[in-house]
Amino acid sequence: MDNFKESDYMTTDRILAITDGIFAIAMTLIVLTIGVPSVSGPVSDASIQKALYTIAFPFFNFVLSFILLAMFWTANHKQLHYVKHVDSVFLWINIVWLLFIAIVPFSTEISGDYSGYTISQLIFNLNLLGIASLLYLNWHYATKKGLINKKMDKTKIKSIKLTCLLFVGVSLTATVLSLIIPKWCSTVYVALLVLERFV
Amino acid sequence: MDNFKESDYMTTDRILAITDGIFAIAMTLIVLTIGVPSVSGPVSDASIQKALYTIAFPFFNFVLSFILLAMFWTANHKQLHYVKHVDSVFLWINIVWLLFIAIVPFSTEISGDYSGYTISQLIFNLNLLGIASLLYLNWHYATKKGLINKKMDKTKIKSIKLTCLLFVGVSLTATVLSLIIPKWCSTVYVALLVLERFV
Amino acid sequence: MDNFKESDYMTTDRILAITDGIFAIAMTLIVLTIGVPSVSGPVSDASIQKALYTIAFPFFNFVLSFILLAMFWTANHKQLHYVKHVDSVFLWINIVWLLFIAIVPFSTEISGDYSGYTISQLIFNLNLLGIASLLYLNWHYATKKGLINKKMDKTKIKSIKLTCLLFVGVSLTATVLSLIIPKWCSTVYVALLVLERFV
Amino acid sequence: MDNFKESDYMTTDRILAITDGIFAIAMTLIVLTIGVPSVSGPVSDASIQKALYTIAFPFFNFVLSFILLAMFWTANHKQLHYVKHVDSVFLWINIVWLLFIAIVPFSTEISGDYSGYTISQLIFNLNLLGIASLLYLNWHYATKKGLINKKMDKTKIKSIKLTCLLFVGVSLTATVLSLIIPKWCSTVYVALLVLERFV
Repeated sequence: MDNFKESDYMTTDRILAITDGIFAIAMTLIVLTIGVPSVSGPVSDASIQKALYTIAFPFFNFVLSFILLAMFWTANHKQLHYVKHVDSVFLWINIVWLLFIAIVPFSTEISGDYSGYTISQLIFNLNLLGIASLLYLNWHYATKKGLINKKMDKTKIKSIKLTCLLFVGVSLTATVLSLIIPKWCSTVYVALLVLERFV
Repeated sequence: MDNFKESDYMTTDRILAITDGIFAIAMTLIVLTIGVPSVSGPVSDASIQKALYTIAFPFFNFVLSFILLAMFWTANHKQLHYVKHVDSVFLWINIVWLLFIAIVPFSTEISGDYSGYTISQLIFNLNLLGIASLLYLNWHYATKKGLINKKMDKTKIKSIKLTCLLFVGVSLTATVLSLIIPKWCSTVYVALLVLERFV
Repeated sequence: MDNFKESDYMTTDRILAITDGIFAIAMTLIVLTIGVPSVSGPVSDASIQKALYTIAFPFFNFVLSFILLAMFWTANHKQLHYVKHVDSVFLWINIVWLLFIAIVPFSTEISGDYSGYTISQLIFNLNLLGIASLLYLNWHYATKKGLINKKMDKTKIKSIKLTCLLFVGVSLTATVLSLIIPKWCSTVYVALLVLERFV
Repeated sequence: MDNFKESDYMTTDRILAITDGIFAIAMTLIVLTIGVPSVSGPVSDASIQKALYTIAFPFFNFVLSFILLAMFWTANHKQLHYVKHVDSVFLWINIVWLLFIAIVPFSTEISGDYSGYTISQLIFNLNLLGIASLLYLNWHYATKKGLINKKMDKTKIKSIKLTCLLFVGVSLTATVLSLIIPKWCSTVYVALLVLERFV
């Protein structure tokens, strides 16, 4: 039990509290990445409509980031529901994971502003790859170190692992695609919504 | 009970936590849509006052959005108080609902900046119509799938349903009015405050 | 008990959750009212220092707002600790109170940007007067309608009332002073820190 | 027990709630200090990449602030886990501490924008020195006034004290270094990650 040295003051409830906070803020803050477009020339319904076309991609990007953040939030809650002990390594995996979550408003904005370029899409997709990988690492560490509920059946442990691997696979695909077809690489995340049903 | 497959890790308490977070942020963030006006020419009490007139509508809009968000927050809490089980469909109705809540700071800003135009008012009112419709769908799904407290009396179930339909009706009216009288369509929400008393 | 019709789904815990959220955000968001000054001319330690002088008043204003918000937060928690039932009027007094809290980042910014002018100080001080008055109203309503713990001794009820009245008195004084000496009217809040000890 | 006069309405749970809120917001808000760079000249992968070099230091600064905030958050939770009573002095030490936390987005931005200058680094490091000192004061006061769990063993009390002193020492070193080598003074915080293991 030497591994759980610090678990007496830090619990999953405390980690969930800061996680909920950072997710709620990141998920709301990304709306600022859209930005109300300024109309050029005289203001009219037609000119506002024209200005709105320029934010079509940033808007799609915002919706995508929101849904992906919600999926990561759900997946993390699923994991922490079964974690019974917290040690300092587990705590810090979660903190670094939250650092990658906090970067999402930045990578969403850069990817929305420069939608057709490899480098901006690479930043966005590497951000997501980092989140997915740390989520996998989190579960891998928790199960390996025996931090989870001992009565948990093996099918469920494996199912959570598979979800993480699916996230890693899809964001890895998007990362590779951003080198080839930067404009359309994000569409691969739509596959996630379909594939997650089968895990 | 096959419907409640995932309810073991996700509870209404967890949904309420992220809901409270996103509402608190959206309700505070919309104040940024007002924007401190910059004074043109030499600064004096008179010139500041004159600059303030330009933010009269954005300010009214902010107050309206805040009150509407508070009403939606209250209505959602009323619903979730009676929900005893959560399945993945219910969870995702709530997440998409929160996506529409997160859009409010954007739609409030565009509607405040271009107050007399159909397209900007349409965006604001369609945003609210989306929120109202999803709130109705949420309750419809929860009652149909038996996720709510079985002992709940039918009058109360119906009363919550009526509140949702009232929200849908008023925001639908505002949407239609934004095609005819964009400058004044938002005033219809004031009726909501009166009408809600009778439901 | 007809007054408590809606108290079954809305509790003080739920109000405290949204209150904590809105306060945490408002208290952190006001730091953005300072704004990192842009240096004019070549960048050097001397020019940065010079630029910093321009944000001296906004910084003082930020600290003042933070401390005042913390005092209001504390006073509200003191009240809600003794409130045992919530009805819809009490809920809405709290929501309108939170609306005034959400305005603080705006009024802090305008008062920091235009520090020597009556109108900007008036907005800030009327904002605080609104917060103080609603806090008083909240307690007045809760005690009058019997929403509080029945065993609470009268000295404590009166002491909480006096704190509210002190807030009203000081912000009223600041409001009047902003008509006469706009530049220095905010200093009257320092008196609050001393006077609160004696209530 | 006269010291605990006000502890009946304010508990560590309530302080933790506002602390979690302010930390979650500060930790997410600092991402805005990076700012998506605007590309000069025609947009291409090369020009975006070039623009990104200009935000290398702000990005490093953001990561540093996030990790430091996480360390302070962890240290505060460790302290409050053992605090059983709250008096008004303890409450206000925590509030002033949160004021210094709320300043971090400002000091992170100024230090990121003017990375090679003494005055901007001084502001950042004095901010951290204030946080570290108040954390020490918090624990000193709690242990001296007997607010902590009486059964807590002395080794643990001392270990928490040492962590605080380590924070004070490192941020004091960084403060001094910002007078000599402003560009590199922040690297001293990396030592913190190593040194904390030995406390």
